[in-house]
Amino acid sequence: MSISEPARARGRRTRARILECAADLFAAQGHSAVSVAAIARAAQAYPHQITYYFGSKDGLFVHAALSTLLREARRLESVGLRRRTPGAFRTALARTALALPAVPAAIQAMSIARVRPELQPVAQTYLAVLFRQAEHYLVTLLDRRDWAVDRPASVEVRTFWSAVLGARLIFESGYGGRSTDVDLAGLLTVRTRQDRRDRSGG
Amino acid sequence: MSISEPARARGRRTRARILECAADLFAAQGHSAVSVAAIARAAQAYPHQITYYFGSKDGLFVHAALSTLLREARRLESVGLRRRTPGAFRTALARTALALPAVPAAIQAMSIARVRPELQPVAQTYLAVLFRQAEHYLVTLLDRRDWAVDRPASVEVRTFWSAVLGARLIFESGYGGRSTDVDLAGLLTVRTRQDRRDRSGG
Repeated sequence: MSISEPARARGRRTRARILECAADLFAAQGHSAVSVAAIARAAQAYPHQITYYFGSKDGLFVHAALSTLLREARRLESVGLRRRTPGAFRTALARTALALPAVPAAIQAMSIARVRPELQPVAQTYLAVLFRQAEHYLVTLLDRRDWAVDRPASVEVRTFWSAVLGARLIFESGYGGRSTDVDLAGLLTVRTRQDRRDRSGG
Repeated sequence: MSISEPARARGRRTRARILECAADLFAAQGHSAVSVAAIARAAQAYPHQITYYFGSKDGLFVHAALSTLLREARRLESVGLRRRTPGAFRTALARTALALPAVPAAIQAMSIARVRPELQPVAQTYLAVLFRQAEHYLVTLLDRRDWAVDRPASVEVRTFWSAVLGARLIFESGYGGRSTDVDLAGLLTVRTRQDRRDRSGG
């Protein structure tokens, strides 16, 4: 059976609308307080369409939380572009990443995926895009500014995001804490090439 | 009403037995597969005693997961003591921490605490002990070896644990990845005092 173009386009729009409404509702009320029925109502869709496109409420949550994180993570790029020294760049990136509103839900989504094998490919896909975008941004910026990092860009990016996720997990679990309790800026190894030569010579 | 000493001691033993059996069952089967009834059976206790001591299954899970993490984290101390150079120390600590079996359940416990305010003081207490022990160990070791760190010991410790938790969260969410994908060793700033002087002079 072939699906006509208009039907395909309509399907894509329905899927996007469900995802958007779900992201808004989850952000406002949290995972457990939101029902599939409420999302369907908000998106003017049928509950079975949510199952069709996302498998389950947990599946939709993982999609919504990680796509929101991806979108918010782009903020880091413009924030970083405005900084003219490696030190200012590291500090601005650390502060912005720690404050991204999407991080706690993304942590919850990754926690859910850990115990739901059918959702792991979804998490895998979003995280791969997150890291690829971040790496591409970093490599481009280093080249433009004539800066360098001490480790492969892919490792720099994943080390940074590991610490961002872990720090928020600690802060929000009840431990509390502030961004000064972890040194995310100092974990980034972005330096001028000159500074890098001096260090390795020292 | 005063509680007699034998009753107090019996209560402590019952509580410890429940916690131990719960930790074993959760480790073997995961949070969702284990029931309060099964834990009570294994610990030769009554379900209402679990409620009395831990509030709920989630409360017991948070206690079990984080007390197991605390116990396993002590392994880092003996591993670190056997290393004679800062480089070997950083590598050994990073590798050991990333492989601790208790980390995934601890992440899940912290995720649960995030959305269960009544469990946040429990998470807070365990994490405070984890960080205090780690900081005390680090300060003692630096002093003994005449090594130094670039940031306050408390910040070094929390930055390290943030990255450990976040890296495991990423690896186990379905993204996969290996310990070489994140540079936990390079995030630690433990150096000889001499190397530190050379760097700051360079």
